[in-house]
Amino acid sequence: MSTTTNTRSVDRYVSRLGQEPGLTERLDPVVWGEAPGPLDPELLASYEDDGYLQITGLLAPEEVDALDREIDRLVQDPEVRAAERTIIERGSDEVRSVFEVHHDGPFARLCRDPRLADVARQLLGDDVYIHQSRINLKPGFRGKEFYWHSDFETWHTEDGMPSMRAVSCSVSLTENTHVNGPLMVIAGSHRWFASCAGETPPDHHRESLRRQEIGVPSDEQLSDLADRGRIVGLTGPPGSVTFFECNAMHGSNGNITPFPRRNAFFVFNSVSNALQQPFAAPAPRPLHIASRDFTPLPRPEAD
Amino acid sequence: MSTTTNTRSVDRYVSRLGQEPGLTERLDPVVWGEAPGPLDPELLASYEDDGYLQITGLLAPEEVDALDREIDRLVQDPEVRAAERTIIERGSDEVRSVFEVHHDGPFARLCRDPRLADVARQLLGDDVYIHQSRINLKPGFRGKEFYWHSDFETWHTEDGMPSMRAVSCSVSLTENTHVNGPLMVIAGSHRWFASCAGETPPDHHRESLRRQEIGVPSDEQLSDLADRGRIVGLTGPPGSVTFFECNAMHGSNGNITPFPRRNAFFVFNSVSNALQQPFAAPAPRPLHIASRDFTPLPRPEAD
Repeated sequence: MSTTTNTRSVDRYVSRLGQEPGLTERLDPVVWGEAPGPLDPELLASYEDDGYLQITGLLAPEEVDALDREIDRLVQDPEVRAAERTIIERGSDEVRSVFEVHHDGPFARLCRDPRLADVARQLLGDDVYIHQSRINLKPGFRGKEFYWHSDFETWHTEDGMPSMRAVSCSVSLTENTHVNGPLMVIAGSHRWFASCAGETPPDHHRESLRRQEIGVPSDEQLSDLADRGRIVGLTGPPGSVTFFECNAMHGSNGNITPFPRRNAFFVFNSVSNALQQPFAAPAPRPLHIASRDFTPLPRPEAD
Repeated sequence: MSTTTNTRSVDRYVSRLGQEPGLTERLDPVVWGEAPGPLDPELLASYEDDGYLQITGLLAPEEVDALDREIDRLVQDPEVRAAERTIIERGSDEVRSVFEVHHDGPFARLCRDPRLADVARQLLGDDVYIHQSRINLKPGFRGKEFYWHSDFETWHTEDGMPSMRAVSCSVSLTENTHVNGPLMVIAGSHRWFASCAGETPPDHHRESLRRQEIGVPSDEQLSDLADRGRIVGLTGPPGSVTFFECNAMHGSNGNITPFPRRNAFFVFNSVSNALQQPFAAPAPRPLHIASRDFTPLPRPEAD
């Protein structure tokens, strides 16, 4: 296992340090390098422009079924329910997320699958490791919203990720429609860093994974980003996969429909972008939320 | 002013009276009578099948602007803010609704406009009066959901409306998109009455207008209705008008986008369907929520 350094680079994305909240220009490339991969130039350009990329029906129905069964198994396992890596929905005892699903079993195989990992390697121009993995369950009828946030803002301030050289990957296991609270991305928002007010309290992740209050962009920042870009609701059949840039502003409305949503979520980080000390938090978050094992995922030819 | 009778018809839609919640067949027509009106047979048939009808861009932009200015005036008027007919958003001091806007001014003219009132008269085959009117404001960023409900279930149990011979009309003053929490209707749900569990507590409207807990259909009823019909999110430019049958199951998700929503809402009831005593509540609701002035709106030729 690689280990983190005790050093810290210059902080190029200042947030939660008493500065005025604002939008500053992104200082990193969006697509890193020009190594070949599964994405053609048109798809690369659309990711570069919009900060996300959706591939409809990438997984076959039987693959989706197998992953779905694995989720059923996980949420019914008393040990998993009781584990710290499991988040229970506010106001109910339903499982909302299970972290760290990339070590073994179907989800470990899924994130190593070249249909996902090769895309991440191509976008980041580097070998990659899993910074975070989880399954998310958004119940029907009473599904709560996820408020707007840039993942990178949290990973930078709380986990010590120095640069915007990571990509999130959401694998939908249920149909996403316009009415059941699908992922919304502000297309184009990845070009701006929204620095946030406030200061990270100790053990912030215990609350923030249920309802985030620190690291939340202001109304003005969100209005500006929505004016500069556009809000897109990502719909598609089960097995669709969305890659979104680590700094893309995203969130989702609640869900009162009877139709629950399930997805698997993987964060691929460049091995050259390994975590340092947090840039604006008293201590790093636990390893099940922010891995410090920077061992590259095996490339297909090495299998 | 006409006055209510003290009698009550046979209760054909039993709810909140200790019965098992279930779905029973509608006992009233959807389209009443065959008098001519603005809707052609195709539109009538679609209303009959789906329980709603949307007319895109019915109002011109300058009409929308005038109504918008009237809302600005109302929500800034300290007397209106303090009035009992005004509902303030949970967890903020923003105005969520102002009731009883149909007596004078632009909203009074709007609900008497033949583009609206003639449609209501045609659908209900009768003269009509305004059972309820209000403007609704759903803020951006932190707009709360409106949970699923049939208006008729409340109007029957709490207001004493005997039959399903009323139509709601929502006039959008802002753009409704898939992402800003638009009105959702379960198309086809108007054919079934979802009787509800529980018992109406005294002064229920004080709480129910902010967050309803009694008169709420069960998960099973909603799943059944969604299986029998389909959930439709109603989008369209400002000035679009939706008519929906009084028993159509509807609701809306929350709204985290920066784009607020505003609409005017009128309930046209048939004068032959005047209110009686409540079918399942200790006392009728206040007159600003459920009018007992059954005077017909003037027909255009009488102007």
